[in-house]
Amino acid sequence: MNIVLLSGGSGKRLWPLSNDSRSKQFIKIFKTEDGSYESMVQRVYRQIRAVDDGTEVTIATSKSQVSAIHNQLGEDVGISVEPCRRDTFPAIALAAAYLHDVRRVSDEEAIVVCPVDPYVEEDYFEALRRLGERAGISEANLVLMGIEPTYPSAKYGYIIPENKEGVSRVSVFKEKPTEDKAREYIEKGALWNGGVFAFRLGYVLQRAHELIDFTGYQDLFDKYESLTKISFDYAVVEHEEHIEVMRFGGVWKDMGTWNTLTEAMESDSIGKAILNERCENVHVVNELNVPVLCMGLKDMVVSASPEGILVSDKKQSSYIKPYVDEIDQQIMFAEKSWGNFRVIDIEEGSMTIKVTLNPGHRMNYHSHEHRDEVWTVVDGNGKTIVDGVERQVTAGDVIQMPAGVAHTIFADTKLQVIEVQIGTDISVHDKKKLKL
Amino acid sequence: MNIVLLSGGSGKRLWPLSNDSRSKQFIKIFKTEDGSYESMVQRVYRQIRAVDDGTEVTIATSKSQVSAIHNQLGEDVGISVEPCRRDTFPAIALAAAYLHDVRRVSDEEAIVVCPVDPYVEEDYFEALRRLGERAGISEANLVLMGIEPTYPSAKYGYIIPENKEGVSRVSVFKEKPTEDKAREYIEKGALWNGGVFAFRLGYVLQRAHELIDFTGYQDLFDKYESLTKISFDYAVVEHEEHIEVMRFGGVWKDMGTWNTLTEAMESDSIGKAILNERCENVHVVNELNVPVLCMGLKDMVVSASPEGILVSDKKQSSYIKPYVDEIDQQIMFAEKSWGNFRVIDIEEGSMTIKVTLNPGHRMNYHSHEHRDEVWTVVDGNGKTIVDGVERQVTAGDVIQMPAGVAHTIFADTKLQVIEVQIGTDISVHDKKKLKL
Repeated sequence: MNIVLLSGGSGKRLWPLSNDSRSKQFIKIFKTEDGSYESMVQRVYRQIRAVDDGTEVTIATSKSQVSAIHNQLGEDVGISVEPCRRDTFPAIALAAAYLHDVRRVSDEEAIVVCPVDPYVEEDYFEALRRLGERAGISEANLVLMGIEPTYPSAKYGYIIPENKEGVSRVSVFKEKPTEDKAREYIEKGALWNGGVFAFRLGYVLQRAHELIDFTGYQDLFDKYESLTKISFDYAVVEHEEHIEVMRFGGVWKDMGTWNTLTEAMESDSIGKAILNERCENVHVVNELNVPVLCMGLKDMVVSASPEGILVSDKKQSSYIKPYVDEIDQQIMFAEKSWGNFRVIDIEEGSMTIKVTLNPGHRMNYHSHEHRDEVWTVVDGNGKTIVDGVERQVTAGDVIQMPAGVAHTIFADTKLQVIEVQIGTDISVHDKKKLKL
Repeated sequence: MNIVLLSGGSGKRLWPLSNDSRSKQFIKIFKTEDGSYESMVQRVYRQIRAVDDGTEVTIATSKSQVSAIHNQLGEDVGISVEPCRRDTFPAIALAAAYLHDVRRVSDEEAIVVCPVDPYVEEDYFEALRRLGERAGISEANLVLMGIEPTYPSAKYGYIIPENKEGVSRVSVFKEKPTEDKAREYIEKGALWNGGVFAFRLGYVLQRAHELIDFTGYQDLFDKYESLTKISFDYAVVEHEEHIEVMRFGGVWKDMGTWNTLTEAMESDSIGKAILNERCENVHVVNELNVPVLCMGLKDMVVSASPEGILVSDKKQSSYIKPYVDEIDQQIMFAEKSWGNFRVIDIEEGSMTIKVTLNPGHRMNYHSHEHRDEVWTVVDGNGKTIVDGVERQVTAGDVIQMPAGVAHTIFADTKLQVIEVQIGTDISVHDKKKLKL
């Protein structure tokens, strides 16, 4: 089977853990059996493999997430890279063209598309397999997953099936209703639309060619920026007469807000946290290496990361986005294909960052026009090249790179470096990539 | 007049702003007219000067606070340094001996002793002056300030005067009562004991000589460690028949807990903070350079510093001490006589700190046995001496100091340096002071 995982948005709703450069699906928040933590994308990927090791997984995502995906899932995972954000229809069209032209998947094969961020158990992936099988043999062009509602939510779209069978034709779709309306729909057997659909590859390719003028994958990729932003629902689902829905009654939690995310946490805190006995229904996620002390709190979430600190009533946390939009904060932490960096000090004429390179990885060879840099290796072994000159480096070594001088660093083991940048116009854009 | 300010304890009750190395009286939390912030000790010192520029101020404090006091009040302030902590009677005896032997104050002169940490207005210092004047002419050996209670607190000691005149003989002292008892006392005209007393210098010196075997200031200083811990109340006040109390009806707030501290804050936040419109009676003190976002909070205090993060119901915050006692946290920020340092990264084999030297100041000349150090100057101008060799330094300069090599740095302007320490046994104790 082929699964396309949609790894979307920037996820400001989970600030300060997520931000423009770090999407919520990469936050390591779920405890695994060995006691370590995994992210949404790692959890989903592991679950898919556990259910059917032969499933082909393609992650449809933007350029900015590629590093983080390789970092968390390894180099083998298939990625359909969106050159920019253009909503779900262009993203699915591009992934379909990628599967067809690059992965040589046939028009008749079933593809299951689902978002990367619901919190689910393995039965969900078994349901996805059945969904794919159904799409392969059904007369319907689209088979959707309908999640059995657990309460009359006003947050979700509803699918009203013609009957209450396991698989039914869809009667009508209802966009986010009021709670009262939702109650009414649920009595009629309505299901939540979790954004999961299956189809034969050829069907979506055909719809894509009808709506977009392109020859094949590469052409679509090249003109991606010129495409109109439109969702798969608006572009395809709404115009399709012949749709089926398959019921799913297992665990399904939308991890879109702190409120729902904390429900999926196994313990009341991650990271250094102290909750006094007067705390009730409090969750703490602390990425800093100093403690968070909570006293007398009720129904609250507290999260601290290098980006900032959130202290919120759990219900109120759903309204976070506009406040985060207003925050104009230097990116303080980012995962890269080679490792990660964290900003540890900012002054007007300098910035100090801690760079961690994973074993076997390296930076690009590059130079900066407006800043000098100084590396002090604090852990590990590797090699630097500065102005063409190679040097083995280890903890305690200092490397100076004046503005204009080309440099890079290779990690033999995990390598940690304190990088001090000095200059008047420090900017991520001041970087010239060079050939080594 | 002579005022002795008692600058006491470590103030864990205001964690994370205060800790073992940073007492609450040095936290810059009060907004001044020019928009900058001042600490308790700065506020009190400024208020004393405003009321009477000729007042001699002596700060009785422990060795560990001397740097911070000079840093905040300048070099001119008189300090009676306690070699270690021995409660208020030894501290006042030492300060009295200091005033007599070092500052040559006569036995007949009035001394006013008061804690450094109540939040008061200038009328309080006018009252202190009257208290001193009264002590100079009164037949009583001690004149105490009695604060008119604003509510029946169970937190304070009460002074019950013989009558309700401005100055009265004390009838009896009552230790922290229940609220009901407190109500009863207040009806009888009881006053809070704010720990403020005035006396003629000779009186306290005489009591000191009765209780401690010492010849003069230097002798008392030398044997300070051997003294018994005992409060001035137990050692002196309880045994004195002839005590007066002077009523004070002005503003007086005890700054001992977050609850009372936040009452004295002029705005609801200090530092980067966003409070949504659903927040009620919330105060934020944020020393980090990333934002704190608060949503839907009520009656709460949030404070973030390099040491940690507190999120507490205001009333619960009074019970903070045992939780802070449990925290075994590396000191992350400290004020020194020459400036301050902040730990910005800790790894097993390294620590990175940001050192800020004030203009004209310098470190001691010193070396480390078990660690190499690397300085990268990020701002300002100064001079380093490494292994006897002088060098002018400015932003961008890198100085390497292998273990065992003597080094120091002088600041011509404000000087900021990123110091990377590399070694397996990094400790504040690994420091050998050397002669330059």
